[in-house]
Amino acid sequence: MSKPYPPVYYADYLQLDRLLSAQTPLSARAGRPAHDEMLFIVVHQAYELWFKLILHELDSVLALFRAGSVNEQDVGVAAARLQRVTEIQKILIDQLRVLETMTPLDFLDFRDYLVPASGFQSFQFRLLENRLGLKPALRVPGFHPRLAPQHDAELRRSAEEPSLFDVVERWLERTPFLKLEGFDFRSAYRAAVGTMLAGDEQVIRGNPTLTDAERATQLRELEATRENFAALHDRAVHERLVREGKRRLSFEATHAALLIHLYRDQPILHLPFRFLTLLVDVDELLTTWRYRHAIMVHRMIGTRIGTGGSSGHQYLKDTTEQHRIFTDLFNLSTFLIPRSALPALPAGLKERLGFRFSTT
Amino acid sequence: MSKPYPPVYYADYLQLDRLLSAQTPLSARAGRPAHDEMLFIVVHQAYELWFKLILHELDSVLALFRAGSVNEQDVGVAAARLQRVTEIQKILIDQLRVLETMTPLDFLDFRDYLVPASGFQSFQFRLLENRLGLKPALRVPGFHPRLAPQHDAELRRSAEEPSLFDVVERWLERTPFLKLEGFDFRSAYRAAVGTMLAGDEQVIRGNPTLTDAERATQLRELEATRENFAALHDRAVHERLVREGKRRLSFEATHAALLIHLYRDQPILHLPFRFLTLLVDVDELLTTWRYRHAIMVHRMIGTRIGTGGSSGHQYLKDTTEQHRIFTDLFNLSTFLIPRSALPALPAGLKERLGFRFSTT
Amino acid sequence: MSKPYPPVYYADYLQLDRLLSAQTPLSARAGRPAHDEMLFIVVHQAYELWFKLILHELDSVLALFRAGSVNEQDVGVAAARLQRVTEIQKILIDQLRVLETMTPLDFLDFRDYLVPASGFQSFQFRLLENRLGLKPALRVPGFHPRLAPQHDAELRRSAEEPSLFDVVERWLERTPFLKLEGFDFRSAYRAAVGTMLAGDEQVIRGNPTLTDAERATQLRELEATRENFAALHDRAVHERLVREGKRRLSFEATHAALLIHLYRDQPILHLPFRFLTLLVDVDELLTTWRYRHAIMVHRMIGTRIGTGGSSGHQYLKDTTEQHRIFTDLFNLSTFLIPRSALPALPAGLKERLGFRFSTT
Amino acid sequence: MSKPYPPVYYADYLQLDRLLSAQTPLSARAGRPAHDEMLFIVVHQAYELWFKLILHELDSVLALFRAGSVNEQDVGVAAARLQRVTEIQKILIDQLRVLETMTPLDFLDFRDYLVPASGFQSFQFRLLENRLGLKPALRVPGFHPRLAPQHDAELRRSAEEPSLFDVVERWLERTPFLKLEGFDFRSAYRAAVGTMLAGDEQVIRGNPTLTDAERATQLRELEATRENFAALHDRAVHERLVREGKRRLSFEATHAALLIHLYRDQPILHLPFRFLTLLVDVDELLTTWRYRHAIMVHRMIGTRIGTGGSSGHQYLKDTTEQHRIFTDLFNLSTFLIPRSALPALPAGLKERLGFRFSTT
Repeated sequence: MSKPYPPVYYADYLQLDRLLSAQTPLSARAGRPAHDEMLFIVVHQAYELWFKLILHELDSVLALFRAGSVNEQDVGVAAARLQRVTEIQKILIDQLRVLETMTPLDFLDFRDYLVPASGFQSFQFRLLENRLGLKPALRVPGFHPRLAPQHDAELRRSAEEPSLFDVVERWLERTPFLKLEGFDFRSAYRAAVGTMLAGDEQVIRGNPTLTDAERATQLRELEATRENFAALHDRAVHERLVREGKRRLSFEATHAALLIHLYRDQPILHLPFRFLTLLVDVDELLTTWRYRHAIMVHRMIGTRIGTGGSSGHQYLKDTTEQHRIFTDLFNLSTFLIPRSALPALPAGLKERLGFRFSTT
Repeated sequence: MSKPYPPVYYADYLQLDRLLSAQTPLSARAGRPAHDEMLFIVVHQAYELWFKLILHELDSVLALFRAGSVNEQDVGVAAARLQRVTEIQKILIDQLRVLETMTPLDFLDFRDYLVPASGFQSFQFRLLENRLGLKPALRVPGFHPRLAPQHDAELRRSAEEPSLFDVVERWLERTPFLKLEGFDFRSAYRAAVGTMLAGDEQVIRGNPTLTDAERATQLRELEATRENFAALHDRAVHERLVREGKRRLSFEATHAALLIHLYRDQPILHLPFRFLTLLVDVDELLTTWRYRHAIMVHRMIGTRIGTGGSSGHQYLKDTTEQHRIFTDLFNLSTFLIPRSALPALPAGLKERLGFRFSTT
Repeated sequence: MSKPYPPVYYADYLQLDRLLSAQTPLSARAGRPAHDEMLFIVVHQAYELWFKLILHELDSVLALFRAGSVNEQDVGVAAARLQRVTEIQKILIDQLRVLETMTPLDFLDFRDYLVPASGFQSFQFRLLENRLGLKPALRVPGFHPRLAPQHDAELRRSAEEPSLFDVVERWLERTPFLKLEGFDFRSAYRAAVGTMLAGDEQVIRGNPTLTDAERATQLRELEATRENFAALHDRAVHERLVREGKRRLSFEATHAALLIHLYRDQPILHLPFRFLTLLVDVDELLTTWRYRHAIMVHRMIGTRIGTGGSSGHQYLKDTTEQHRIFTDLFNLSTFLIPRSALPALPAGLKERLGFRFSTT
Repeated sequence: MSKPYPPVYYADYLQLDRLLSAQTPLSARAGRPAHDEMLFIVVHQAYELWFKLILHELDSVLALFRAGSVNEQDVGVAAARLQRVTEIQKILIDQLRVLETMTPLDFLDFRDYLVPASGFQSFQFRLLENRLGLKPALRVPGFHPRLAPQHDAELRRSAEEPSLFDVVERWLERTPFLKLEGFDFRSAYRAAVGTMLAGDEQVIRGNPTLTDAERATQLRELEATRENFAALHDRAVHERLVREGKRRLSFEATHAALLIHLYRDQPILHLPFRFLTLLVDVDELLTTWRYRHAIMVHRMIGTRIGTGGSSGHQYLKDTTEQHRIFTDLFNLSTFLIPRSALPALPAGLKERLGFRFSTT
């Protein structure tokens, strides 16, 4: 390793001159310095730094999956990067605790200077949601953040480009395991489900602790479950649900995801399972962050209008679940069946799902 | 310190014999041991240990406040104990991460043995909610947990006894600061609010970034805010809101809480402010726990019925906010006004709010 | 699923009668109830519950590895269980925050009743250390906890049985990849290291920011690094270091671990890499827990003797690093070389490290 | 509130243009982009943002205490700000988990480009240590970070200015409660200690679980404790210990801190106690951060030299405890005595420690 690199110093490398001179409290400029405005600025800047890093990670995952074929090594790398995203998201949530050390009264000391700035104007956060797969039509309406023209254009463009949702759906649809000779996943699974639901019905009918009313309720719920499964078995029904907005993931992709969950103990499915789980983790942590954020805003400003002229906490609460992307993966547990009820894989197939090299 | 105490050993002191022999997985008893059932048992037992500790702390706070008079030292002790409760609650939330290491498929390996056991049957958790002040009428309906008769009776009794909400309300109502000669908090505050809202209206009308539609929306919201404040100024209106279930805290107690928030920089109000803040913290952490718990259950069992025969996650989601106790304190920020708009305290009164001993 | 299982209720399932009646504060028994003793008991009981769960997980991993052969699926399961252990360990650390809500003065209210009980008498914790691989000879001396005879015997036995360290070492030694035709890992690696260290020397000699003294120091350090590597290349030297207690992991196992780290991007090495990383995570979290625990004890009781008659915090500090098990894995980074310097795998070998089934 | 403020937008307010363009990976510039360098940059920039905020909070506390007199309100404000610092510090520690998602091998991909940059060159961190009260003479030697001249000068200046340690010491020394008529704290305390230590000796001599050797050890430790206390009673001895570097806090300040701990239940001492506790919290969290940081660096680069040409982890480990500031407060528990042994305050004094206004 010959070393032609010039020496580099910490402060230069991190561009601390720019970074640490970018905090200009407006209350001070207005001649009435409010101590806590520095906190407010720094916390939000930290959020934007993390958003930048999350985008860096998501973009790299997208690049891996946009390519025509995705090999196992890529899935491993993608999983590691999503896992990093989840660690960052935990920091996003924890950072709220720092913000919460500011009391509502202290916020009032400088809140008026910020009008109409608002966190909902974060370009990066909206970009991040687009990258994950939030479609413009699914956004909670009512906010038209004022963004720089180039940001506005980039957001629009990003909404058109393949999102993480899109590339994952394509990747799942290409899974070869659904169509293997000697094993028809869909029909084997359908039979196993039938047996299981019959058992559940028996449990409800025979549960001595239920009142008649409770039993009736549960049987109605079981019927709903049955219909859920029916939709899973029937392509036409599934596609209707997709059109109605009740499902997003395609028929094939849904079955592939299900197969990966059910047979995840097979070595070749280990990383795909981990990757799908991490997608749901990312979604769940984003949901939790929105929820905690909504509570914090509610507590900070009550039911008053936000600095951006918004009844912010209600908007945040509305986005909490509506902006979730991988709802179908999140709901997948509905369709899992116990290992004991799982159709066994043919021995030949099982071997093909292992490694070439035998370590045993 | 003469020492008549017999020697005591760690294992005996903690009664580890009983504690560590109280884990009996049903799957093993049924001859099909499921590895993760031990996790399931231990996590839930840890929850119950923490609930016991939370009850211990809440009961001690209740005892302090049930007494006829509450001195400053008591408020300090109560605040320290609530602060401990919040630290325990953070553990309750963090423990979900341990539970989440169990995958839905692993849960299915033993889920059927547990019917109809369900976490909703936790006696201690319901007692805890009662102690805080959840009234039976406000509980999300639909669950009649099967409890031991003595627990059922204790729950019923606890719903009748003064709760933390009740004793805090009494304590606030007794606050002497609302009625002091030379300072009429209510009228001073009312005047200050009027000035402030007029300013807010100006902001909205003059905000050049709003579309006409947005401006109209915000003016409607401002009108709603004005009505909120009006209710605060008018005892009859407030009492109507209480009857309608839109407020819980009495007219006097609400004003006392407001005064404590606004003048918390006065030494004598420091601990009362801290105490009120911690009540909201406890509520918020409980709310967060319910929310995260609902998500976890949803993810674990999908939209299927729970082991107790419940569509558990929906019930949990419904309780998330409806079981909140100190909503009025949580919403108090709505009624805060900036320090710069705050009516000044008469000098004589200010002195009386300080310490007898001057340390300066 | 026919359902012959009897109905089971939450309180019975968790044996709450036993669990929640196992807290008997000695201060109350002595007639001088100290409020915080309940906290003290519950926190320690929660620790013991978690220890039980950690042992359950470790034992299952040990069982997987004790078997003659370990297949890929087993490594995946083992990794998932260790990952769970790390989540539990984070709770162990977080729980200290609950304990820290007790002030030293409040502890003094009941500390005398506990003599000579001490956390160092935790049988389960010592068992856990033995299971991981702490040899009796390596324990920080000075504590002979008074244990029940059966516990004493079990501890002694567990020190003789194969530990996690032992079975992992055996498993690594059996790795086939070191001895493959067409690829001699050891000599390829040795050559690559030589090149890299020559580069490092150049960096130090050419670094214009160093004073002469600093440069001299660093060259001495480089020399030490070279000797470190030399030991890695030379079986006789390595075995001497093992005898001297400076290394624990055998020559073969060390190289296998190194190979797994360097070529972890190969699918077949993904899970082994994850597993080794988790072993170090477990070790690191245990070390952090000991350190934080030592600080907490120091802060709680100062430099006074502990309830077990120990200068506890010093003992804890001494164990912090000395009781670490997988030090050699922890230090492995010392021997990593950049991917760019990594010897390329022959194409045939690379293919054999992939899956039989091609998903691309 | 008339509103002459110009409208302000989120991106401008946070100066996102500068903030988000300040990440320039050197590996990309060198034509060999390493994905994880962005992580490395962002995490370190986030650290520097937090350091800026911590300095903002510490400076405000220093300003409050530098003034001639400190009133109760100031102590409350100072405590709230230190509490905020502790919340930030928890984020500092948690952020390490994000950094740890980078594996040592991934770090090697760009490590060479960073030479000789090093985190030890953080100007803000050194400033922060100086503000707290780290004296140049007490710094672990061996690192002479290359800083910009103005930073070097500011560091030197800050080492001369009154630190938080200094102003707290002054404030404690001015406490009036040590010298009150009718109550001589020092002699009352001395007598109580004598009684208590005699009791401890009895415990050791009568503890039937100790071997003779253990008993002898503990009696020696008790003797050391006695000498500790003796130093506390004797100004000349205390001052010798200060000269020898074994104590830092002055004789008067130590007694004042002790009195505040022992009588913290008195309303007037509540905030001072909370403030002192938070000083130790800040110290402890800093210590924990250093320790965890040292472990992370060790794990990342093994025992190799750091990018700044340092055997970094050893340096970090050395600073862990040596850079602690409030060791005397940390050790204060050594000198606490049980409430039951505490000399009672004369009634008149007790009343003077309460509020002027009686709320009961």
